[in-house]
Amino acid sequence: MGRTPADPASERVSVAFDIGGTNLRAAAVSTSGAILSWSSLPTPSTSDAMRESVMHLVHEMQASYRVDAVGLAVAGFIDPECEMVRFAPHLPWRNHPVRAELSDALGLPVCLEHDANAAAWGEHLYGAGQGRSNWVLFALGTGIGAALIQNGEIYRGAFGTAPEFGHLTVVPGGRPCACGKRGCLERYCSGTALVQTAEEMLEEHSGSSLLDAAHREGRLDGKAVIKAAERGDAVAQAVVEDFGRWLGLALSIVVDVLDPAHIVIGGGLSNLDPKYFVPAQKYMAENIVGAGHRPLPTVQRAVLREEAGVIGVAALARRLATGS
Amino acid sequence: MGRTPADPASERVSVAFDIGGTNLRAAAVSTSGAILSWSSLPTPSTSDAMRESVMHLVHEMQASYRVDAVGLAVAGFIDPECEMVRFAPHLPWRNHPVRAELSDALGLPVCLEHDANAAAWGEHLYGAGQGRSNWVLFALGTGIGAALIQNGEIYRGAFGTAPEFGHLTVVPGGRPCACGKRGCLERYCSGTALVQTAEEMLEEHSGSSLLDAAHREGRLDGKAVIKAAERGDAVAQAVVEDFGRWLGLALSIVVDVLDPAHIVIGGGLSNLDPKYFVPAQKYMAENIVGAGHRPLPTVQRAVLREEAGVIGVAALARRLATGS
Repeated sequence: MGRTPADPASERVSVAFDIGGTNLRAAAVSTSGAILSWSSLPTPSTSDAMRESVMHLVHEMQASYRVDAVGLAVAGFIDPECEMVRFAPHLPWRNHPVRAELSDALGLPVCLEHDANAAAWGEHLYGAGQGRSNWVLFALGTGIGAALIQNGEIYRGAFGTAPEFGHLTVVPGGRPCACGKRGCLERYCSGTALVQTAEEMLEEHSGSSLLDAAHREGRLDGKAVIKAAERGDAVAQAVVEDFGRWLGLALSIVVDVLDPAHIVIGGGLSNLDPKYFVPAQKYMAENIVGAGHRPLPTVQRAVLREEAGVIGVAALARRLATGS
Repeated sequence: MGRTPADPASERVSVAFDIGGTNLRAAAVSTSGAILSWSSLPTPSTSDAMRESVMHLVHEMQASYRVDAVGLAVAGFIDPECEMVRFAPHLPWRNHPVRAELSDALGLPVCLEHDANAAAWGEHLYGAGQGRSNWVLFALGTGIGAALIQNGEIYRGAFGTAPEFGHLTVVPGGRPCACGKRGCLERYCSGTALVQTAEEMLEEHSGSSLLDAAHREGRLDGKAVIKAAERGDAVAQAVVEDFGRWLGLALSIVVDVLDPAHIVIGGGLSNLDPKYFVPAQKYMAENIVGAGHRPLPTVQRAVLREEAGVIGVAALARRLATGS
């Protein structure tokens, strides 16, 4: 018979997708930003299959919730009107009108957003950006993601790609990058950079049983390096110290160019005890233009962690659906 | 007797100051942005003498024009409310409430603005930024000046200092900079950088009679290098080619971080035949993130040249005075 108010299907949600190269992860997000449940599928290799998989996951959520809107947080270039995925290195979409296609297929309002912008919007509403009108999210993961909130709204630039810091050349002729260039910032300041620095230091120094073991066992990632440093491993500590200087340099670029009042460090690496955090801020303060003659932004760790993106794009989708 | 409408004192102007380390230059700027006359005094070394010199020049202009407002374009850090000069390396003001002090002393509306922002506003109203709502001025002079117009207004950042590109570290351990750091962008991409590159190349190569002569005679500046390149000097051409690559790198940073629709190259160097201009755009297009997968900004030379700053700040002062 008819559903009663106690029926879970009466709970209104946005379904928010975190779309990565490996998995499509869908979260049912309540009107107050709480994640009620997760579901996922492997990321398909064609745009038709992407549509089908998104539809499948939304329909699955509709069995349990009243779905008001759908949001997609995508690691890729999105046009400034948030209609189209121009290019996403790990996804099949190329200049594809994702928003309209999915909205038509689902009969629901759909919001498309860059993943760093989505995460910033989550932190803006419920996390480390609350009450701030001008701040930058600087997210440290496999690479670098960044977003600027200006006057309380997402700054997109003219073509929807601002702000990107990961592939600024900081070492001419430096470490090769998958982008084809050399010396990109994210080759020195990211989870993968931590691993590369660790590998280079392991070649030069002996005496790191923790890192050597992780390396032999194929589990040397950024988190393993930070955890080894926490446990007193000298090589790992040197790697983290080097990383802190590069993060400080990266933040000084953020301050020089965007001049935010507040910087939130997010992404997977920020979840761990960040011994690099205070040195990075010191290095930032020393390297900005006019050092000592201008106020510094406050710097804080993200609050919502890996969930910031889906919480943010769920709220953006709801805003789109309600027009508020 | 009373002044007639034909009397020059009936012409309404803003008096706009270009405040440099050597001279205070004042322009009488008409309501349509035309510069009617100039006057100048040496830049004093105390803030009291600054006030007196500004007042003297305004009073001198008042003998010829009806002065509605006064604008000051300053090479230094200004608070985001444009009340105070926090720091200007070549001026005596330190955290000094310049706007209110001069407005009280003169009994006129006074507008204080960063010199690159003022120049961008001039180009926005009358020059290469007309009809553009999202664009960047990148000014090449002794150093680098930059401004971002976003949604038709000046983007200031939280503390009034955005966007600064000149002291981003682009070569770790590179050329020493007067700021105390090494490898700053403006040590490779500015008028003074052209001279330094020329001097380095002269040490390595012989056979540049034009540059050698200029160097001996103490007149080797950025313009001399560009002019020698135009006249076919091989060393000067190599210097300008190197400069073009650095400008391309600089513009790729502008594009990655700010993503403007349009870039205007201004400053003293842009007045000369810029052989570096096309190579710089090619290098920019190759070095931006997502190269080939996103639209490029248009790039254009500034129109108002050295007058952009006074024309811009005159208009800003008039806007402040009329509240429109």
